[in-house]
Amino acid sequence: MGSVDTSLHAHTSGRAAVYAEKHSVTHPLILYGGWFCPFVQRAWITLHEKNIDHQYFEINPYKKEAEFLALNPRGLVPTLAVPVDKGSRPDQKPLYESSVICEYLDEVYADESSNGPSLYPVDAYEKARARIWIDHVSGKIIPAFYRFMQHTDAKAYTLDEARAELLGHLKTFIREADPKGPFFLGSQFSMVDVMLAPWLCRLFLFDVYKQGGLGVPARGEGGEDENAWNRWRVWADAVENRESVLDTLSERDHYVDAYKRYAEDTTQSGVAKATREGRRLP
Amino acid sequence: MGSVDTSLHAHTSGRAAVYAEKHSVTHPLILYGGWFCPFVQRAWITLHEKNIDHQYFEINPYKKEAEFLALNPRGLVPTLAVPVDKGSRPDQKPLYESSVICEYLDEVYADESSNGPSLYPVDAYEKARARIWIDHVSGKIIPAFYRFMQHTDAKAYTLDEARAELLGHLKTFIREADPKGPFFLGSQFSMVDVMLAPWLCRLFLFDVYKQGGLGVPARGEGGEDENAWNRWRVWADAVENRESVLDTLSERDHYVDAYKRYAEDTTQSGVAKATREGRRLP
Repeated sequence: MGSVDTSLHAHTSGRAAVYAEKHSVTHPLILYGGWFCPFVQRAWITLHEKNIDHQYFEINPYKKEAEFLALNPRGLVPTLAVPVDKGSRPDQKPLYESSVICEYLDEVYADESSNGPSLYPVDAYEKARARIWIDHVSGKIIPAFYRFMQHTDAKAYTLDEARAELLGHLKTFIREADPKGPFFLGSQFSMVDVMLAPWLCRLFLFDVYKQGGLGVPARGEGGEDENAWNRWRVWADAVENRESVLDTLSERDHYVDAYKRYAEDTTQSGVAKATREGRRLP
Repeated sequence: MGSVDTSLHAHTSGRAAVYAEKHSVTHPLILYGGWFCPFVQRAWITLHEKNIDHQYFEINPYKKEAEFLALNPRGLVPTLAVPVDKGSRPDQKPLYESSVICEYLDEVYADESSNGPSLYPVDAYEKARARIWIDHVSGKIIPAFYRFMQHTDAKAYTLDEARAELLGHLKTFIREADPKGPFFLGSQFSMVDVMLAPWLCRLFLFDVYKQGGLGVPARGEGGEDENAWNRWRVWADAVENRESVLDTLSERDHYVDAYKRYAEDTTQSGVAKATREGRRLP
């Protein structure tokens, strides 16, 4: 989001295009986003998991979307327009921050018969523990993803350091996962999985763009980390094949095009700039 | 926390010492922390606001606290030991991340007659909106606090830039506050206030350590920001004088001593090192 990369495809493709088309009719609950944006995909997966009726609205980052900016003057960030009763007529209010949007959706759409179970554990301690690992995803794994993706020879850190940092955070994560799985908390897909899934789907880009690739050791070559990487493969396989994840993904080639300027560290997106400046992601 | 600064006082003082003494008896719910640590103070304020019976345990950062490290191998971070029924005997499990701890406490201790109202709004949209501004506190204001506090001539940014960044984030925050207040969400003290209160209490340190001081314009000198700074003063006054905030504060001089190495950018605390390296705060 917020990117001005002219190489970008303007629309969803593949299964995401089918899912977007199904949700193209006017509806008071609207997700505004870009098909390439992993933060948007978090909200999209949540809408899908909970069978929430909504409208998906693709934002074109080249155009000023007057209607959108009237709703959220903060600019082109993933935004959920929420219907709110305002006196006699329904109104809309904006929510942003993907994790806030996902939590809101989980809380409000809580009819078990139509929305299924909550994406958070019921037990308060387990819920808090889930939040700790969601924080690890947002605070450690994702920043390391961008530091690695945006590595160039001009950086003060080496490519191997950036790779080791990302892999280290992934290992810390997976070592805390339920031993059997397949998901982080066990047999139930949860918000912890939602929070990391979009970047999991984009890990192949390291093999495309970075010498040496992602660097997760092949089966049998993990040394002392063998168990961790085996568990990682179980998790990754289960999450990548989740319907809600598959249905919100566009075609691989389009991600390759979209992330070229990240890999070259020339994109002007908010996330990319924050990474470049060593700041917390917006 | 995690500091090895030998200039540090070992214990709470002032009103915090009185409050700590009241909560020194063995209890299955234990807050482990350091008196000087603002993240600990968030949890402490929450315990106070909700009248939650607990034990406060001061961690001495110079000593290896074997019992503590057995509970939380992550090391000397603010930690809540939570009683959990494990078969026939009660056990303890650790929670960390101050915002996770506060949210857990608010959720579990929800008996209105003894714990008072929730620190979050009841309405789901208003709750989500509170989370957005909590995110602004943790993701924008607090990192800017440390960048400003740890400014030295060796930095790539100027002192004026660091000051302007902090003041800018404070203005963004207060402009979203309920117009009347006095608290962020209105007449009710909420988690948004809890999250920023400890740093509010430490803003005076800029006047001690940084040339030009904090830089909030005096009344009548705010120009186009006059309304924002007037609202800021209303908020700051209300929060600084809240019992839970006053009762968890040690003596001013002790903070001055504790933050000297932050101001000189020589402390080895996790937060200070992350700020120095341009990373997200741990």
